[in-house]
Amino acid sequence: MFSAPTYQGRRSRLAADLGKGLILINGNIDASMNYRGNPYPFRQDSSFLYFGGPDKPGMAMTIDAATGRSVLYGDDLTLEDIFWVGPQTTVQQLARQAGFDEVRSMSKLAGDVKSAGDQLHYLPVYRGDNVLRLAAWTGRTPDQIQSGHSEALIHAVVAQRSIKTTEEIAEMTWAVDLTGRMHVAVMREAEAGLRESDLASLVTGMCEAEEVVPAYGIILSKDGQTLHNHHHGNELQSGQLVLGDFGAESPMHYAGDITRTFPVDRHFTNKQREVYEVVLDAEMLAIEACRPGVAYRDVHLRAARIIANGLKDIGLMKGDCHEAVAAGAHALFFPHGLGHMIGLDVHDMEDLGENHVGYGSEVQRSDQFGLAYLRLARKLQPGFVLTVEPGIYFIPELIDQWRAEKKHADFINYTALEKYRNFGGIRIEDNVLITDKGYQILGDPIPKTVAEVEALRYIV
Amino acid sequence: MFSAPTYQGRRSRLAADLGKGLILINGNIDASMNYRGNPYPFRQDSSFLYFGGPDKPGMAMTIDAATGRSVLYGDDLTLEDIFWVGPQTTVQQLARQAGFDEVRSMSKLAGDVKSAGDQLHYLPVYRGDNVLRLAAWTGRTPDQIQSGHSEALIHAVVAQRSIKTTEEIAEMTWAVDLTGRMHVAVMREAEAGLRESDLASLVTGMCEAEEVVPAYGIILSKDGQTLHNHHHGNELQSGQLVLGDFGAESPMHYAGDITRTFPVDRHFTNKQREVYEVVLDAEMLAIEACRPGVAYRDVHLRAARIIANGLKDIGLMKGDCHEAVAAGAHALFFPHGLGHMIGLDVHDMEDLGENHVGYGSEVQRSDQFGLAYLRLARKLQPGFVLTVEPGIYFIPELIDQWRAEKKHADFINYTALEKYRNFGGIRIEDNVLITDKGYQILGDPIPKTVAEVEALRYIV
Repeated sequence: MFSAPTYQGRRSRLAADLGKGLILINGNIDASMNYRGNPYPFRQDSSFLYFGGPDKPGMAMTIDAATGRSVLYGDDLTLEDIFWVGPQTTVQQLARQAGFDEVRSMSKLAGDVKSAGDQLHYLPVYRGDNVLRLAAWTGRTPDQIQSGHSEALIHAVVAQRSIKTTEEIAEMTWAVDLTGRMHVAVMREAEAGLRESDLASLVTGMCEAEEVVPAYGIILSKDGQTLHNHHHGNELQSGQLVLGDFGAESPMHYAGDITRTFPVDRHFTNKQREVYEVVLDAEMLAIEACRPGVAYRDVHLRAARIIANGLKDIGLMKGDCHEAVAAGAHALFFPHGLGHMIGLDVHDMEDLGENHVGYGSEVQRSDQFGLAYLRLARKLQPGFVLTVEPGIYFIPELIDQWRAEKKHADFINYTALEKYRNFGGIRIEDNVLITDKGYQILGDPIPKTVAEVEALRYIV
Repeated sequence: MFSAPTYQGRRSRLAADLGKGLILINGNIDASMNYRGNPYPFRQDSSFLYFGGPDKPGMAMTIDAATGRSVLYGDDLTLEDIFWVGPQTTVQQLARQAGFDEVRSMSKLAGDVKSAGDQLHYLPVYRGDNVLRLAAWTGRTPDQIQSGHSEALIHAVVAQRSIKTTEEIAEMTWAVDLTGRMHVAVMREAEAGLRESDLASLVTGMCEAEEVVPAYGIILSKDGQTLHNHHHGNELQSGQLVLGDFGAESPMHYAGDITRTFPVDRHFTNKQREVYEVVLDAEMLAIEACRPGVAYRDVHLRAARIIANGLKDIGLMKGDCHEAVAAGAHALFFPHGLGHMIGLDVHDMEDLGENHVGYGSEVQRSDQFGLAYLRLARKLQPGFVLTVEPGIYFIPELIDQWRAEKKHADFINYTALEKYRNFGGIRIEDNVLITDKGYQILGDPIPKTVAEVEALRYIV
């Protein structure tokens, strides 16, 4: 963990931003898998971690916004707990490590929270168990809890967590570096006849060996055109592409989120390489466009135009690229957004509301198909860390629907597209820090040019 | 999955057992990790699976107990969902596979459930999200939901799920066989200088490669004396024991739950072997005692006496073994129960209440330290599958407390015990089916004698 003054500074700033009221940041409890006694691996709430909360279930913190006084709530284990789970750090020690002013038992929390009345500030709640706990502590109904979070607190938390400090960048770099090694291992090992699950097993094993977990569900599939595809049941066959989108969490729970796409064979086919180079151009030129003051929405549109232009060269799109992108025609191939903030969450702070995090008051979210999925649109600032992840996909169901509707027929060459129905999908993704003057790609370089990727592929 | 008639038969029997009212068996939804969009791997509710519910989030079933008519509730994906997650089996197809009489949209469920009024039967709810969903459907408060489950439905479900069919045994055998291969791999690979996490990584990787998950949090530790220890951060050192307690879930989500303990070195030390042989005797003789009509409480006590007797031979206990066990003195070394039912849950049906599953009306749960933790006490029946898992542990905190209190000083040789403070713990566990006349250990034999275990250990 970071130093006590770091956490004290974060809590003080939060208190100052709110000015008055009682801030409650609630930690998670164990999440039941198939019964209470068989929980999923514990994942602490990210904001709780950020403000110095220990990585343990069943705790909470309050900060008096007027005075800045912080209280850590928790209970030490009994001897009986200890022989099930082993000796543990005491709540007092945990509080000292993160510079809290006071420790109280969880049994005191309801009273303290009720005393705050309508001066209570808490963040949006994304687990049903926590809705019930907050309802019990406050005496409010679950519906009131789910609608009663504090907008002021959201803004104050987003303001701090959006700007990563040097020590956070070091942690994120660790995550990206392990993630990169996982991708290299997968690219080296993949070959025809293996199953997707054999590659996924490398990824989980490499995380487990470092005592960390994947930051999100592993995507590792020959069917890259299915964007959130967590199925790993296919056997890899010659001629196919494999799309791997996975990342490790660091020990402090910062996420890495990297995508690479590579051929099952040693080399890309010409057809695959043509499309791959378009995605790679879009990715690298989008990254080059990242710097403070630039709206990420504009970077997204730039990538979309590079994709439209590249697909025009290949013969799959036609007409003016600016007009095609303005109309949304590229979204048949690139239906998602260019990227999102990343930090303690892979979609950083998504629990606080994507518009608060990625749009703010600067930009209005579009309702155009494709652009509507853009998670980050606002102007970039030094300290932002975000993903840049353009892709080109051939999604049969979407192609069929659009062609039947003759949608954007001025911009799309549906006849030529027939030969790409079974192509799959390509995405390339890096994690990028916005610096004072430009950008920095986090971590050691992970092979991504055609030559670099092919150099990793097995030799028959 | 099993055949439609299998699921129809289960639902019909459930309806007949209840006689009247509306039975609601609710499926799980995705469980949030750090925000709604980043869920844990989906785990369906076990009773929902058992009665034919699909292995997909956001569904439910009802059974009219008077007529036996069954309805599967669910909604097909939109095109927009499909390009995120790929084409999916329709709800109609899923319903047909499991022989449901009707399909309805989830939007109809609240109305149907409200119509049932106080004639609604549902099982205990172990996820907050489901408490909130049931509250919304029924118009009841969360507290009412949490206390309002149906005892009659619990009894009817426990009656069916307790007796495993031949096709269930085949599925469980698959889980145990994979689990056995995982244990053998760990025993072969372990050596001084490796970390516990390197071994855990083998386990998760082998599950992932088969597209299944561990059935519960992996215990793989040099600190076997900590019973539920999921930390894997230690480096293995010569002279230590390693306790591995882990199991795979089968594709249909039946659990394997096996424990083996082995030395980091090629051979057990004499001291380790002495204790190991006591645990092994207890395990094998307890298994031999398993047959229909025998109360598992008595098997537990038999294992406890073998442990007490063995520890007396070693010089750590003294006095009469029957008296020692009756007094609970053995529980310093063997503080947990001998085993539990296993099936779709590793502690089968623990969500329905351990006493309903393991005690029923036959046996009263003891409040004696040690025996109080026994999860299964009732008379065994053909078709039960259970774990047999005795252990001997040297838990420093517990030893210190008991010695300070001179607890059971007539039966425990506290002076001799000093030399075992850092011994760790040993547990050996198999999964056992009760047959018409006796028992059958599930799966291919997994090495467990000293000679078998040592034969697997690496050669320097």
